[in-house]
Amino acid sequence: MKQGEAANRFRRFEHELEDQGMDCFLVTHLPNIRYLCGFTGSAGVLTFANGSWSFFTDGRYTEQAKNEISGATVRVNSLPALAHAAQWLAARMRGHRGRIRIGIEADHLTLAMESAVSEQLSRALPKSKFHLAETSMTVERLRMRKGAEEIRRIRDAVNLASSIFPQVIESLRAGATENEVAGGLDHLARVAGAEKMAFESIVASAPRSALPHARPTRERIGRGFVILDYGVILRGYCSDMTRTVHVGDATKASRDLYAAVLEAQLAGIAAVRPGAAAGEVDEAARKILRKRKLDRYFTHSLGHGLGLEIHEAPRLARGQKQILEPGMVITIEPGVYIPGKGGVRIEDTVLVTETGHEVLTPTSKELIIR
Amino acid sequence: MKQGEAANRFRRFEHELEDQGMDCFLVTHLPNIRYLCGFTGSAGVLTFANGSWSFFTDGRYTEQAKNEISGATVRVNSLPALAHAAQWLAARMRGHRGRIRIGIEADHLTLAMESAVSEQLSRALPKSKFHLAETSMTVERLRMRKGAEEIRRIRDAVNLASSIFPQVIESLRAGATENEVAGGLDHLARVAGAEKMAFESIVASAPRSALPHARPTRERIGRGFVILDYGVILRGYCSDMTRTVHVGDATKASRDLYAAVLEAQLAGIAAVRPGAAAGEVDEAARKILRKRKLDRYFTHSLGHGLGLEIHEAPRLARGQKQILEPGMVITIEPGVYIPGKGGVRIEDTVLVTETGHEVLTPTSKELIIR
Repeated sequence: MKQGEAANRFRRFEHELEDQGMDCFLVTHLPNIRYLCGFTGSAGVLTFANGSWSFFTDGRYTEQAKNEISGATVRVNSLPALAHAAQWLAARMRGHRGRIRIGIEADHLTLAMESAVSEQLSRALPKSKFHLAETSMTVERLRMRKGAEEIRRIRDAVNLASSIFPQVIESLRAGATENEVAGGLDHLARVAGAEKMAFESIVASAPRSALPHARPTRERIGRGFVILDYGVILRGYCSDMTRTVHVGDATKASRDLYAAVLEAQLAGIAAVRPGAAAGEVDEAARKILRKRKLDRYFTHSLGHGLGLEIHEAPRLARGQKQILEPGMVITIEPGVYIPGKGGVRIEDTVLVTETGHEVLTPTSKELIIR
Repeated sequence: MKQGEAANRFRRFEHELEDQGMDCFLVTHLPNIRYLCGFTGSAGVLTFANGSWSFFTDGRYTEQAKNEISGATVRVNSLPALAHAAQWLAARMRGHRGRIRIGIEADHLTLAMESAVSEQLSRALPKSKFHLAETSMTVERLRMRKGAEEIRRIRDAVNLASSIFPQVIESLRAGATENEVAGGLDHLARVAGAEKMAFESIVASAPRSALPHARPTRERIGRGFVILDYGVILRGYCSDMTRTVHVGDATKASRDLYAAVLEAQLAGIAAVRPGAAAGEVDEAARKILRKRKLDRYFTHSLGHGLGLEIHEAPRLARGQKQILEPGMVITIEPGVYIPGKGGVRIEDTVLVTETGHEVLTPTSKELIIR
């Protein structure tokens, strides 16, 4: 990561810790670590203590950590990274006056991990001398507003995923199984340069298109709606898109269903602007489906933030009060699922801009009949 | 899941809970839930209280849970599954005499999840009336010894992965990138019927073959060793295999390196039998490499159990005292990594039998020169 960018994130986080009255912080969630210091490996702990940053990892990652991280000292010994971090922190803070407040990530730290931290701290400090303060979303809140480089990466990932869509449609031939189409889709993405898929690709042919959480099966693609929901990772950042295609002639009822979901999706997008609450955007889309008496088939929330993770803050769901801000990147993905028949979902990735929004996904949303 | 099988697992687990003096237990780790009751979805909590089993999930999974689970009552309300489970448990146990010991999975439950459980319990019970008892590996220990149906599934997954290996070798043509070969491999597996890959497939061409944790890159396959490490999931169960192929003519030194790793792998396999300690098996392989002064390049442990997860107990590593028992399924995968040059790893999946072992992986281990 560029030095300036990391230093800037460190500074914003330090301000946050000051506001919360933390003396130290243990960052254990890997996407949060990557965000703050740029480390892309799969094992490590980032620590802030007494004004300075350290990164703890094991022998496999010493070289990589030194190459990737600036602004934090890389530390390796024979202990597991988390125990090492706690041990080092205890030694570093021994002279601290008063009780040491150590922030931990309650959404990610397991009870076993917390025990390991407490044990190491207790070896060097009396129990009364430190307090593990459970925090939630401390780094995640910073991650909501994306920087220019992050937006560039998401845009590249979105464009890569969209670029293979025509070939994915070609592969929807009669006789192919959902599994084969999904496997082919993933392969196309890899050949196009994706690091990996952002999540398990969904290829759901009616009646399975009526299951919002359907996984590809060995069933053959049949007549009706097919939901294609997939995303790629490029330079660490995710994309996410859904299109619904109709195989065989579509009835008037099917066309109307598709049109209703598309109208709801466009209404959701239209509501995206700085200052709007996440719940208001959800309601803008839901209202359209309510008018058509389809809202009871829209059984999930409207969308979610994305970035280093496929699901990030903010959540776009009923009653969510989070205010949208420029730089947030979110999905808008209403869906209607008629049990036993089929479903339609349409999803774009959308950037909140200074004045409103920009739809990043370039793929057309006209109904494709195959 | 077949009714008899589930009932049997429930009973074994209940005995375990009795031994540990637990009145209730909250199973939150999805592979543990799947093992005990057969549920294959992605959200739910399995609860044992007062001699009976309940499964809590949300509206998306009501039908699926009822179809898949026998021996536990499926319960759905508007609360998140974990909060619902805790609420129900508190109501169910209100008349309990003495303090209620509720087992939780400390290796998997986050601090935030524990808070949610405590909060629900506290609404209905005085704090002094219940105790959340942190447990470790309680279900995982039962999962170590596989039943006949589990072994059949692992065998099928291993055979599927091996069946595509010749085509993977074909794809190792000059000019292909690691990423393309990995994408092609995953595609072959899906077309052959795999549900998905068991982990991110590794295709590492020298010098990256010298990094045991290498991910596929956009670099082209060059002359030297290529490590191929992949596994599939079939009916929920994982396979895991590694072969190292040499692209271009191999020097005597490279052939000797390969031969040394193969000898170590065979020595590890030969040591697998009921009654052997996991650490002894690790040592049997490590000793061979020590004789050749290669042990300092063997920087990881010898292997791991596999089943519903790609990494399960037992761990085969230095000093591990776990005794091998019939029905355990493990990998044997020594590797030697010479920094800047290249590496060799060879891995089979091995079943511990009543009298010794059976190598499940049918693929030849002779050095392939491409």
